[in-house]
Amino acid sequence: MDRKRNISLVVEYDGTNYHGWQCQPNGVTVEETLKGAIERILDHPVKMYGAGRTDAGVHAFGQVVNFVTEKGIDLTSLTRGLNSMLPDDIRVGSAMERDLSFHARYSARSKTYVYTIHNAPRHSPFSVRYSWHVPYGLDSALMNKGVRSLIGKRDFASFKKKKEPYRSSEREILMAGVKRRGSFIHIVIEATGFLRYMVRNIVGTLVLLGEGRITLEEFGDIVEARDRDSAGPTAPPQGLFLRRIRY
Amino acid sequence: MDRKRNISLVVEYDGTNYHGWQCQPNGVTVEETLKGAIERILDHPVKMYGAGRTDAGVHAFGQVVNFVTEKGIDLTSLTRGLNSMLPDDIRVGSAMERDLSFHARYSARSKTYVYTIHNAPRHSPFSVRYSWHVPYGLDSALMNKGVRSLIGKRDFASFKKKKEPYRSSEREILMAGVKRRGSFIHIVIEATGFLRYMVRNIVGTLVLLGEGRITLEEFGDIVEARDRDSAGPTAPPQGLFLRRIRY
Repeated sequence: MDRKRNISLVVEYDGTNYHGWQCQPNGVTVEETLKGAIERILDHPVKMYGAGRTDAGVHAFGQVVNFVTEKGIDLTSLTRGLNSMLPDDIRVGSAMERDLSFHARYSARSKTYVYTIHNAPRHSPFSVRYSWHVPYGLDSALMNKGVRSLIGKRDFASFKKKKEPYRSSEREILMAGVKRRGSFIHIVIEATGFLRYMVRNIVGTLVLLGEGRITLEEFGDIVEARDRDSAGPTAPPQGLFLRRIRY
Repeated sequence: MDRKRNISLVVEYDGTNYHGWQCQPNGVTVEETLKGAIERILDHPVKMYGAGRTDAGVHAFGQVVNFVTEKGIDLTSLTRGLNSMLPDDIRVGSAMERDLSFHARYSARSKTYVYTIHNAPRHSPFSVRYSWHVPYGLDSALMNKGVRSLIGKRDFASFKKKKEPYRSSEREILMAGVKRRGSFIHIVIEATGFLRYMVRNIVGTLVLLGEGRITLEEFGDIVEARDRDSAGPTAPPQGLFLRRIRY
């Protein structure tokens, strides 16, 4: 019997045509599509673990998965084979062999998400799949102050998905910032972990701040309230990208 | 009876989901979608003229159309109304009132197309709709020499669509160049007019040059041959953008 190999892959995908990452009964997911391709190549069932469970319509530059096999396939052939079988909107980047203890989700030290707003009078046909179009002017410097005030360990209950049960809604944001590039505004948040909808709920509330509908003080009050009803709307999924997992 | 107004629009579209620009029986086209929206707003049939007939899957940043109406609708309301009715992948930019003699196609002094190649070992899920993925290394400086040798008035029969009848296949290229930005190569060609498939056939042949499969001299021979069979393959449509019409 061959030795066990724990293989990790970095995966990019355009989430537009998927019902999110995680296997579920009502539609095609990225997870099942990728897992199916891995199983066809290895010719045995695998347990595959993903670092982040992106929601429907959310994209990824740097999703990471791992699975165990005893097959001796070299990593270049594995990557090439997967890319020849996968649809155009899912790509496997680098493959690595890891310690047997490595787990894509539990070994992650941090995850970074980027959210893109297209802040222009008209949306563009070329960015509508990959950004949230906000037509009124946004003060990105003020939004930067808002998001930076979230850095640190705190209770993010105001930004969680309603009715989603968590033992604790405390999370730690390591890095955060808002940058404008022309008519695009990028919101970057790196955290040790995220609540479901957390980035999109933070972005929805930052937009209220950027519009001038709430002040920086009121933004702080919303965080302190620890109540989802106090915060702004959930930003739409197509602006969100899982950018990187650190181990 | 109100006076006749000749209105022009600049139009952007993602051509992925359309059977090209021009009305035809076998699928939805950009032209019929836009014309339908204009007619619903003006409440009368229009003759609409487009500057360039982009093929299936080709995109546009700066398509121009014109049509005549006697309705007094102001241009801002027209643009807003159209954008509220049109699908996300077609956007109307600026609207202008023109002389009655203006014709989007016949008044054009030049058209500029840009073709984008993604020159990297793996394609990206985010650029696959908007570029041609060429995995092997391309010499973009040599391709630039090739495309610049086409500047001027000449017979482009080597780059026309086969079996497409033309009175003359002479056209004039005013400006041309190839530029690399990271893993993307952009090929820009401005001409007073184009033969069908001309840009895509030039790009297909430039790629042979960039790969080293033909020399610059052989590239010149292909142009001189005035024979479609001498040139390279037709580059796929999704890398092509109609960028601008000059009047």
